Amino acid sequence: MKEKERFYKFFGEIHDILEAQQILEWDQQVIMPKGSSEQRAGVISTLAEIAHKKLTSEEAEEIISNFESKAETNWEKAHSREARKMYQKQKKIPSSLIAERSKQAIITQSIWKKTKPASDYKTFLPYLKKVVDITREIAKCGDGDQPYDFLLDEYEPFMTIKELDPLFENLKKGLKEFVKKYSSTDIEQRKKAVSKFVSIQNQEKICRFFLNEMGFDFERGRMDISAHPFTTGTMDDVRMTTRYKEYYLPAALFGALHEGGHSLYEQGLDRENFKFPAGQSCSLGLHESQSRFWENIIGRSRGFWERYYEEVNNLSDKAFNEVSLDEFYKGINCVAPSFIRVEADEVTYNLHIILRYEIEKELINENLNIEDLPLVWNDKFFDFFGIKPPTFAEGFMQDIHWSIGLIGYFPTYALGNLYSGMIKETLEKELSPIYELIKNGKLKEIRNYLKEKIHLKARLYSPKELLVRVTSRDMSEVPFLNYLKNKYNFLI
Amino acid sequence: MKEKERFYKFFGEIHDILEAQQILEWDQQVIMPKGSSEQRAGVISTLAEIAHKKLTSEEAEEIISNFESKAETNWEKAHSREARKMYQKQKKIPSSLIAERSKQAIITQSIWKKTKPASDYKTFLPYLKKVVDITREIAKCGDGDQPYDFLLDEYEPFMTIKELDPLFENLKKGLKEFVKKYSSTDIEQRKKAVSKFVSIQNQEKICRFFLNEMGFDFERGRMDISAHPFTTGTMDDVRMTTRYKEYYLPAALFGALHEGGHSLYEQGLDRENFKFPAGQSCSLGLHESQSRFWENIIGRSRGFWERYYEEVNNLSDKAFNEVSLDEFYKGINCVAPSFIRVEADEVTYNLHIILRYEIEKELINENLNIEDLPLVWNDKFFDFFGIKPPTFAEGFMQDIHWSIGLIGYFPTYALGNLYSGMIKETLEKELSPIYELIKNGKLKEIRNYLKEKIHLKARLYSPKELLVRVTSRDMSEVPFLNYLKNKYNFLI
Repeated sequence: MKEKERFYKFFGEIHDILEAQQILEWDQQVIMPKGSSEQRAGVISTLAEIAHKKLTSEEAEEIISNFESKAETNWEKAHSREARKMYQKQKKIPSSLIAERSKQAIITQSIWKKTKPASDYKTFLPYLKKVVDITREIAKCGDGDQPYDFLLDEYEPFMTIKELDPLFENLKKGLKEFVKKYSSTDIEQRKKAVSKFVSIQNQEKICRFFLNEMGFDFERGRMDISAHPFTTGTMDDVRMTTRYKEYYLPAALFGALHEGGHSLYEQGLDRENFKFPAGQSCSLGLHESQSRFWENIIGRSRGFWERYYEEVNNLSDKAFNEVSLDEFYKGINCVAPSFIRVEADEVTYNLHIILRYEIEKELINENLNIEDLPLVWNDKFFDFFGIKPPTFAEGFMQDIHWSIGLIGYFPTYALGNLYSGMIKETLEKELSPIYELIKNGKLKEIRNYLKEKIHLKARLYSPKELLVRVTSRDMSEVPFLNYLKNKYNFLI
Repeated sequence: MKEKERFYKFFGEIHDILEAQQILEWDQQVIMPKGSSEQRAGVISTLAEIAHKKLTSEEAEEIISNFESKAETNWEKAHSREARKMYQKQKKIPSSLIAERSKQAIITQSIWKKTKPASDYKTFLPYLKKVVDITREIAKCGDGDQPYDFLLDEYEPFMTIKELDPLFENLKKGLKEFVKKYSSTDIEQRKKAVSKFVSIQNQEKICRFFLNEMGFDFERGRMDISAHPFTTGTMDDVRMTTRYKEYYLPAALFGALHEGGHSLYEQGLDRENFKFPAGQSCSLGLHESQSRFWENIIGRSRGFWERYYEEVNNLSDKAFNEVSLDEFYKGINCVAPSFIRVEADEVTYNLHIILRYEIEKELINENLNIEDLPLVWNDKFFDFFGIKPPTFAEGFMQDIHWSIGLIGYFPTYALGNLYSGMIKETLEKELSPIYELIKNGKLKEIRNYLKEKIHLKARLYSPKELLVRVTSRDMSEVPFLNYLKNKYNFLI
């Protein structure tokens, strides 16, 4: 059927261009010669422009319309829906705004890097304002009530403030109580137990061992090193990174499990469809549900260490000989308020996100002036955590996201945790208690379950639809909070 | 001036797409996960198609025409000429033929890999025929007398059979006599002297040492490992590879010097113009003149080893303590007939090329049937070298080039040697005897000379024009033959 072939060729090409971009970005993070930043930026922005032009062309509209009229199977209907959504979304935003944002993002990012170490917020704020102003303009291109929803939808399709507010409100309430009750007081001592020397070669061996256990396919992917761990690529070329600290194995290990979770999602998509609109991962929230499932629900669980502690100690040249399983388990599970999001534990992490969510909503809805951001952040932080950041570098300046126009992105991190709680609850009903599976080393069984339920489904459904189908329940923060309670009851 | 900006943006984008392709191809050779070949092939062919479409569009014609009418400076005129040439050349070949060639190349290449080890020419030939047939069709798209010229021009712009025949005829005559006179009889013994164990770490150190000596900028390039050494990328992101044999340092070292020569060319182009049509390297022949200059004229010279032998021995953990400078020098300079091109010495190498040139001319002009190729090759080989390949794997099946449609490419290897001879002769007149420069470690002085005379000139002129300007003499094989005679007179 000619219309269909044309559609697949067209979107296959768009996918190819995006994949080229992804590999070039990976290369830039991992191995590119330093001097080539500017040249590489040019190449990447040319590819982005080509993809954008193609996707917003009259040809695209024609190809999508023709395909829509012939779509029959579930996949075809989903491809139609997703293609139409992509097209409309791109069409709504003037190309000039997108170009402006990219340009301003590069400038503001470099100012952020320079001003952050000394918390020089006075220099930073005017540049941040420019990015926020452009992002406000983009947000207004949507046609819903709430401009912020248009941004949110970019990362978590169909998600809205209306739906997110009550979820996060309940989560916040639950977590604030939780933190009061379960915060550890002996953190220094606990962390000492896991801070032993393990050579980088051994740490790498350990990471590769677990990636193999999980079912990561090294014939279709790579593991490398980068300053900030990340995963990119898809299907047969999935690349993840981690980082090594010689005296802190958990950095590399949990980095690898986290990125491994992302990688399994990408390696587990539907082979026939992954290049087409509904064939990609469902949302950033769902992606994050997979990475956090592997990092936290599995990797920081009691069963995991009952199963693997001896193995890890052996692979570490017996670095943990003097550390009991209990001490190790407590060392990697400390709950306590802290300033830096990326170093936060699995509990307080979500409060860091909700704080950002509340602030960025106000920023976009123009209820908050950029000038007030530094102190609003600090006040809010005190309200959430009972402590105040001593510097702005440990406050509103800590993340790169806003500098580069990533507003509406943060919520997906906490959504990932909520989703992972819902998925865990269902997996335990349908398979068996996850503690048993993990303790018996049946990680691949878990992987197969996730693949069948989540990965292979790609974007056949909206994130919410998919979750409701998988879990047979409404979206809720309860399973995640239950998971935390059950775990930390035994961990105080 | 609007027309000019439009031209630079347009061709800058085409350059960006090609650069993306180059990095993806490098990635494929060096670090890509094995399982991703098919996926990567799709990405690369999509990019190639986009570049081709762009270059042959009506927009391209309009942009070039507008620019032509405004071109004033030398660079602008050269950009006009090169853009027009690219456009016309691409327009002459139907897209379908190019697509067919790419497709058939992939198939025939894989058959070649499978059939070569057992010299299974019967299975291989029908597939090779398909590629040759398509290449014949492409050759006919030109409008000169000789279809082969159209292919040749792809790799060595403006070069023709008419010009190449007498050059290669004289070179062949000279070399055949030379080989008779200068062939070494004690090759085994000579090679033994240089076949000492040097750890791969040390070999890598040695390669990096020399690349630094030459002026390779590691901030704007990389060195890695691949099965067959190659160089790709340009300006601020130039990537070269070499390969290591633990008991044969010369493989890595001369690989690095050779690819280092290519790299200096790419790093040395004109920064303002390298993305535009006349800003790229002048021709494959000139590229090869640079790599062979560094590999042979410099790297295999007496002065080089007088200067660096002790250093290399030290960096090799004294592996060559028992080998005299003379023995080492003789070990890396043995002349003798042999079957495999890529392992041939700097003298006989050119005969391997001329043999391929004579055969591929006949193949394209349809004076030679594919079926007769295996035996024609062997007969010709005997005529050139006085020996006959014992297997077809060591005969006509040894190279990948024809399988993937690279016909008209081989001559550039020998042209590179001829050009390097001409350039050396001039450099000695203008600077000082190269022996003195090398012996005194003034490699960067040589590099600067080449940069000024060749690299920065890019495609301002045709290869021939550039060489005539640099050397103030006509194209000739004489300087190269003189160089060989002067060298090997002392080496028998």
